[in-house]
Amino acid sequence: MSHDIPFLKSPDQAVFRDHMETKVAHWIRQWDGQEDLLAGIIGVPLSKSSISHSGASTTPAAVRAAFKSFTTYSLEYGVDLQHLAVRDLGDIQMHVTDIAECHRRIEESLRALYKKQPNLIPIIVGGDHSTSCPSLKAFADRHPGQKVGIIHFDAHHDVRNFEDGGVTNGTPFRGILESGVVHGPHIVQIGIRGFMNSKPYHDYVKSKGVHVYTSRDVRRMGIDVVLDEALGLAGKDTDVLYVSFDVDVIDQAYAPGCPAIGTGGINPWDAMDALYRLGTLPQVQGLDFVCIDPTVDVRNVTSRLAVQFMLSFLAGVAARPV
Amino acid sequence: MSHDIPFLKSPDQAVFRDHMETKVAHWIRQWDGQEDLLAGIIGVPLSKSSISHSGASTTPAAVRAAFKSFTTYSLEYGVDLQHLAVRDLGDIQMHVTDIAECHRRIEESLRALYKKQPNLIPIIVGGDHSTSCPSLKAFADRHPGQKVGIIHFDAHHDVRNFEDGGVTNGTPFRGILESGVVHGPHIVQIGIRGFMNSKPYHDYVKSKGVHVYTSRDVRRMGIDVVLDEALGLAGKDTDVLYVSFDVDVIDQAYAPGCPAIGTGGINPWDAMDALYRLGTLPQVQGLDFVCIDPTVDVRNVTSRLAVQFMLSFLAGVAARPV
Amino acid sequence: MSHDIPFLKSPDQAVFRDHMETKVAHWIRQWDGQEDLLAGIIGVPLSKSSISHSGASTTPAAVRAAFKSFTTYSLEYGVDLQHLAVRDLGDIQMHVTDIAECHRRIEESLRALYKKQPNLIPIIVGGDHSTSCPSLKAFADRHPGQKVGIIHFDAHHDVRNFEDGGVTNGTPFRGILESGVVHGPHIVQIGIRGFMNSKPYHDYVKSKGVHVYTSRDVRRMGIDVVLDEALGLAGKDTDVLYVSFDVDVIDQAYAPGCPAIGTGGINPWDAMDALYRLGTLPQVQGLDFVCIDPTVDVRNVTSRLAVQFMLSFLAGVAARPV
Amino acid sequence: MSHDIPFLKSPDQAVFRDHMETKVAHWIRQWDGQEDLLAGIIGVPLSKSSISHSGASTTPAAVRAAFKSFTTYSLEYGVDLQHLAVRDLGDIQMHVTDIAECHRRIEESLRALYKKQPNLIPIIVGGDHSTSCPSLKAFADRHPGQKVGIIHFDAHHDVRNFEDGGVTNGTPFRGILESGVVHGPHIVQIGIRGFMNSKPYHDYVKSKGVHVYTSRDVRRMGIDVVLDEALGLAGKDTDVLYVSFDVDVIDQAYAPGCPAIGTGGINPWDAMDALYRLGTLPQVQGLDFVCIDPTVDVRNVTSRLAVQFMLSFLAGVAARPV
Amino acid sequence: MSHDIPFLKSPDQAVFRDHMETKVAHWIRQWDGQEDLLAGIIGVPLSKSSISHSGASTTPAAVRAAFKSFTTYSLEYGVDLQHLAVRDLGDIQMHVTDIAECHRRIEESLRALYKKQPNLIPIIVGGDHSTSCPSLKAFADRHPGQKVGIIHFDAHHDVRNFEDGGVTNGTPFRGILESGVVHGPHIVQIGIRGFMNSKPYHDYVKSKGVHVYTSRDVRRMGIDVVLDEALGLAGKDTDVLYVSFDVDVIDQAYAPGCPAIGTGGINPWDAMDALYRLGTLPQVQGLDFVCIDPTVDVRNVTSRLAVQFMLSFLAGVAARPV
Amino acid sequence: MSHDIPFLKSPDQAVFRDHMETKVAHWIRQWDGQEDLLAGIIGVPLSKSSISHSGASTTPAAVRAAFKSFTTYSLEYGVDLQHLAVRDLGDIQMHVTDIAECHRRIEESLRALYKKQPNLIPIIVGGDHSTSCPSLKAFADRHPGQKVGIIHFDAHHDVRNFEDGGVTNGTPFRGILESGVVHGPHIVQIGIRGFMNSKPYHDYVKSKGVHVYTSRDVRRMGIDVVLDEALGLAGKDTDVLYVSFDVDVIDQAYAPGCPAIGTGGINPWDAMDALYRLGTLPQVQGLDFVCIDPTVDVRNVTSRLAVQFMLSFLAGVAARPV
Repeated sequence: MSHDIPFLKSPDQAVFRDHMETKVAHWIRQWDGQEDLLAGIIGVPLSKSSISHSGASTTPAAVRAAFKSFTTYSLEYGVDLQHLAVRDLGDIQMHVTDIAECHRRIEESLRALYKKQPNLIPIIVGGDHSTSCPSLKAFADRHPGQKVGIIHFDAHHDVRNFEDGGVTNGTPFRGILESGVVHGPHIVQIGIRGFMNSKPYHDYVKSKGVHVYTSRDVRRMGIDVVLDEALGLAGKDTDVLYVSFDVDVIDQAYAPGCPAIGTGGINPWDAMDALYRLGTLPQVQGLDFVCIDPTVDVRNVTSRLAVQFMLSFLAGVAARPV
Repeated sequence: MSHDIPFLKSPDQAVFRDHMETKVAHWIRQWDGQEDLLAGIIGVPLSKSSISHSGASTTPAAVRAAFKSFTTYSLEYGVDLQHLAVRDLGDIQMHVTDIAECHRRIEESLRALYKKQPNLIPIIVGGDHSTSCPSLKAFADRHPGQKVGIIHFDAHHDVRNFEDGGVTNGTPFRGILESGVVHGPHIVQIGIRGFMNSKPYHDYVKSKGVHVYTSRDVRRMGIDVVLDEALGLAGKDTDVLYVSFDVDVIDQAYAPGCPAIGTGGINPWDAMDALYRLGTLPQVQGLDFVCIDPTVDVRNVTSRLAVQFMLSFLAGVAARPV
Repeated sequence: MSHDIPFLKSPDQAVFRDHMETKVAHWIRQWDGQEDLLAGIIGVPLSKSSISHSGASTTPAAVRAAFKSFTTYSLEYGVDLQHLAVRDLGDIQMHVTDIAECHRRIEESLRALYKKQPNLIPIIVGGDHSTSCPSLKAFADRHPGQKVGIIHFDAHHDVRNFEDGGVTNGTPFRGILESGVVHGPHIVQIGIRGFMNSKPYHDYVKSKGVHVYTSRDVRRMGIDVVLDEALGLAGKDTDVLYVSFDVDVIDQAYAPGCPAIGTGGINPWDAMDALYRLGTLPQVQGLDFVCIDPTVDVRNVTSRLAVQFMLSFLAGVAARPV
Repeated sequence: MSHDIPFLKSPDQAVFRDHMETKVAHWIRQWDGQEDLLAGIIGVPLSKSSISHSGASTTPAAVRAAFKSFTTYSLEYGVDLQHLAVRDLGDIQMHVTDIAECHRRIEESLRALYKKQPNLIPIIVGGDHSTSCPSLKAFADRHPGQKVGIIHFDAHHDVRNFEDGGVTNGTPFRGILESGVVHGPHIVQIGIRGFMNSKPYHDYVKSKGVHVYTSRDVRRMGIDVVLDEALGLAGKDTDVLYVSFDVDVIDQAYAPGCPAIGTGGINPWDAMDALYRLGTLPQVQGLDFVCIDPTVDVRNVTSRLAVQFMLSFLAGVAARPV
Repeated sequence: MSHDIPFLKSPDQAVFRDHMETKVAHWIRQWDGQEDLLAGIIGVPLSKSSISHSGASTTPAAVRAAFKSFTTYSLEYGVDLQHLAVRDLGDIQMHVTDIAECHRRIEESLRALYKKQPNLIPIIVGGDHSTSCPSLKAFADRHPGQKVGIIHFDAHHDVRNFEDGGVTNGTPFRGILESGVVHGPHIVQIGIRGFMNSKPYHDYVKSKGVHVYTSRDVRRMGIDVVLDEALGLAGKDTDVLYVSFDVDVIDQAYAPGCPAIGTGGINPWDAMDALYRLGTLPQVQGLDFVCIDPTVDVRNVTSRLAVQFMLSFLAGVAARPV
Repeated sequence: MSHDIPFLKSPDQAVFRDHMETKVAHWIRQWDGQEDLLAGIIGVPLSKSSISHSGASTTPAAVRAAFKSFTTYSLEYGVDLQHLAVRDLGDIQMHVTDIAECHRRIEESLRALYKKQPNLIPIIVGGDHSTSCPSLKAFADRHPGQKVGIIHFDAHHDVRNFEDGGVTNGTPFRGILESGVVHGPHIVQIGIRGFMNSKPYHDYVKSKGVHVYTSRDVRRMGIDVVLDEALGLAGKDTDVLYVSFDVDVIDQAYAPGCPAIGTGGINPWDAMDALYRLGTLPQVQGLDFVCIDPTVDVRNVTSRLAVQFMLSFLAGVAARPV
């Protein structure tokens, strides 16, 4: 709007703004399609692939809306992020009724993006967890000749069979393992919980060499020790790491806005410390947050959590050796 | 965003769109500051002037969000609005703690706007009802030498004294009457309800010559007859008309998202018919909707109501003789 | 509080008050136990007698809280109630676990009250409908040698058998009929709905001579005609009338805060018109409102409804010939 | 459970039951797969075909849960339904991720059902409106050599193009018209609303000869007259009628639990009267209720509405000449 | 249902099912009244005995509904429960208005059950805490000549006097102590909180020799040490143990769905560890969970908690020496 | 009410009361304006000074309502508060539209109160944090010639500039520092969080000599050590201490009812331990709780928290050496 009418502004400009404070919403602007980026937010508004009724498709919008509630500066980590080249790349458009096409689009879109921005750290905001399989295929392909390891935070193994319902939010790690894109021994699952998985699937991941730390392990060993071991395992013989973070790994008291909630999960400050540390590691080259359902959240605390997790990770990135 | 990455789009472009359908959100785009307009949406995000706790300041955002739920075409009125020059002019920026300054800004901003766009029909989205007084002052000033009449839909007379709390959502018509900007006999209040006003204030408006139709009158006489009479009264000896629509005139079952709700109010279809008819009249040159509180609404039905009211009015405008 | 500290006041005094407006909360003060009253509000916080889970015991508090949202003046009925001697008599204290004792207390307390205030019009705020039986026993006893008629607004006949659950919110009219305190032909039920009663109970009331108007009758005949007939029937051969108003007679869209909601009910303005008219009749000497559950209400619209009903009735009382 | 432990019962038996009252939940028992039925409830828990996020897949469960809140007897229509052979046939199992397969299953399942129960009146509880297309294909096939007419209650034409999103809740009547299973002139749409449809789609239905009554027509002409005309049109040259009832035809104040709500809709008592009358007509041989979203409903009033609509229709069926 | 119609199934069969996963809902089937059981779920839907308004009567249904959200396998405890003989015995039917009769029924029904199933571990799902007194009387009677100890998790002592309100959710341990069914020194209360009990009642339990660990003790000493000591005390000179678990012992952030919530409570993972350990002890022969109110819960997190507590206990039972 | 009608009582007397238990609501009665007090509750219902929409003005009422849910006795601290002279002094009446006047009133009213009750410990219940600046000015003035230190619990520094919005909930410590009423080195901020403050403001407080402990410091060092250090710093060279407690210092899982919530905050039991200890120190002479918004709270857990914090502090006060 170009005019000289006093006080009349576009709605996002007409709000209160403190000129001495930068909000995340001011920093993570829309990408112009050209700027070389350190990291980029990519929304994947898909939840029709979810077994249970899920509004995870509204997560990208909810996360963006929460950007205005946080600043770019952390006195806890001693860092101001506002000069990092992090932008909002928008959403990958989903098909309304063809779910297989949705997964295809995710992979195709990310491949093209990675071609254009080979050094970008993708921060993918799901959507449900089914999005992680095409995401990892595109990711692995970006690193030809290299081995990919995965640090997977989740309450669930996510290795359901394909016969009973096709490709769903319950199958991404089945898909990843069976496609061979990542090998079992290069995957560490952290935060898996009791009475939320079946024995056949636990046996399956063990048979594939996947490493598992339960939520109770995190509580008893401490997140630092668990992460030490996890990095030793997933980092062994691999070249790059991808972090897949299903927010239902967090206890239901802290993250009530996930479809499959329960108690006994890990707490948010352990997650923030872990994500900060993962951010500091140059081999970590991709990250996704999945399985938030903002439509059932309480005061959008779970979307806020996702933003704080993302910022903790980026604070780590800012501390990477140049 | 200018790039060739397939499916990756800005969030508002990545949603489903039917190429054979125009949504209000696609039609009422942001004003470029230059285009000559038939009508313009102006948000006034002010509710600190409200006596009771009110989130009316969030109404402009809620109304805009509801634009995506409606199309431009009405088979009921036989009109497609999508070619009318109606744009979103944004919000008038409020001061955070100086309420008098807020009212001053409304008046100053509208005066400047009217200077630039003298034929624009303002559609002002409050905010609480205190915004109507500065709005009318600017409006009256746009029509020098002309007399302004007001059709005022409300459950309340809105003529409280200024001593007990200053300029509030309870005082706009006191302000209008005392400033002399509009004369009592040129004002018609429709939908005033029992047990929601005090006798001294009823006596006050009567003493000023204001005409009053209760909600019960509307139910018994029919909205058409009431409007016939109201136009006869407000239109007599006046040159232009302004419509001030406090949404709490609607029964609480239909408009639960207002601060001061109650039963016995008028129903939405009577309001839509009245607004359509008011839209058809060339002398109606301004309109405001006030006193919605989206933070306490149920499924934003009250914001949707405001949109449907606005569209009904514009359907009438589209039918004005050229 | 007696001190001279500026601005420091008791919480109910520290709120905004317009000196030109009297709220119902200011008018209906607590009774001093001595003043001769025209009418009195009596809360009966009992809902453990309800068949389904009900928070009707919180209704008296919710209704009192809504008193601050209404004024004493109705321009629709042309009356200001603020000089009527109507007071809040408080609540009848219920036993926590002995439901039969609760019913006994209601009867005993009301008998004692009526002895002290023989001309008081009781406005009893339930609680569930089980409270109407002891209420009517005390009421009938106040009028020895006189016959009592009842105008009963309800979606339900409320004549369940006592074997299956004892004395509940489903049995008051069984209790009234079997005790002989009021005869069937002196009772008119208005607003009874289909698919909310069983045939045996409909047959039972018909066999007792009770007159029944369905909600559909009200819609097709109009509330005025129904009330004409009802007064002719209940008023025939009787000396005084009692009005028992179960708020679930109102359609669920207008009264969502009742335990047993449904559509097809009567609308609030018909109810207000009927209650105003009943208020004008000197033979109407008692009134109760029952079966609101504020804990499941939406923006307390149903409690507000009860207040507006009560005020409409009192507006009628104010118009009684002296 | 077969034991003699006092008071210990299965959860649905341990609740309060009045032996003189039959609830709909007691009457509409699960079908045994053999009994010859007058009518059967068939759930279609599909809403992944919905364009907007919808929990319509939970409607069959919500409607069944509401069965316990209604009795079988209507004093308004003078009928007790409890001896009609109406049973609950269960749900058609949906595929989790293959939406086209879901539609195929609906058609296949209904074809098989109709073969087994050729005289059954199906009462299909969606699910979103996409379910009506396969439903009608199976229905039409049951009546070979006969012409089918449709009375379609809806706020929307539901004839979107297939290119933009495939087969969705926006396309059923496009599918019906293009497949030729029912001809345009044999379809009457009642309750279509302004600003909820696009002109190209309105033009499309008109070009196909479909008859349209807006919600405003219903308000001005009365539901009886509209239905007279509609039956004249849809019944002309046809042999059997199907009623497709999208609950969003009802005003948002009465049916807040639909995905696409708005004001200006028809009211529930008009709908009940219309459905009763449709029930009385022997040529009406099928019925569906779609597009309720219980996850966003308020006190499940919209599911209750569906039950009352269903019961009104069945009350009409009970009155059919034998 | 016995038929060959494809895809048409009873509603609970038509949902998604992964053939490699057993849900608790599939495992804990309804008891046939004959099978010899290891443990049984018994619902006691009573909350009219609660001092404050409580929907605890809906807990058994809410807990059963949550069974579908958990599997039978815990990788944390290394156990799959699906072959344990645990069944759902249904609910004890309550009287609608006679609360004393309700308590009588609980005792009578459990006595009969224990006669038939002398080795059953009852897992009683209240209802409010008043149910624990009759429950313990029946339990003690099953073990004639043996002494019973109680591990009681609660924020409250629950030893109110009987004069002020009769037998309520505030009195079970008064009833147990006064009846002599269990001696004070054999009772350990864990999790009692400050500002939620009165000094006279604290003095009373101390005078009876009851052992008390506050919630703060748990936080400072650790749940393991507290439980060590508690088992030493309650286990001394007793033969069998009963665990009574009032869910309000948990902090309000984790268990918001209890009537009497507050902060400073114990956390769920301490509770799960304690319950697992109690499960492993052969002398623990009974367990109840009380005082959840699902009607005020948030996303039913509190009912889910109860299920996870129950499963943790049963995981311990599975580890008992044979 | 003076009468002898059985069971009829004022609403607050008609509720259940256990004669062996004293609730906080019974203890903290309204002040008579004369009694010499140890401590007094003063409500400041102001939130129009809040930058974001806030219902903090309703906190005093919400906190008082929660008084009925707690007793006066803490077995954890071994103290019964019921004989302490703590009373409710009511609210400071705010102006409806003049925010500067509101702040002036706070200061004037407190000055007058302190003159009359020079030894009173004020427990001020906001309102938003803007109230702390006038509160501290009055407080400092009560202690002429003495130096005041502040222990400030908050997620935010609260030192925004005044240019962008005037005196708001974001500026109290800017106001305190700039007015010189308290010196930077005498202020300790505890619980400040990352991504919720800007670097310029962090630099500002550091430049003023303010001491800062982050929430992460509390988690890693323990609240006891942090408080040791804080008391050493704020207590050095000062004579009296004031505690300003912004409830958003608590993690959003425990205190969801604050306007600016986030994760990573301190937990309530640390806060209670800290407040108890601060209560024991004779130099702590004032306390405020601010920035709760009861209108967005969940089951009023945040208001309950405030009550428990207040009681913990008073338990400390009770243990002060006489």
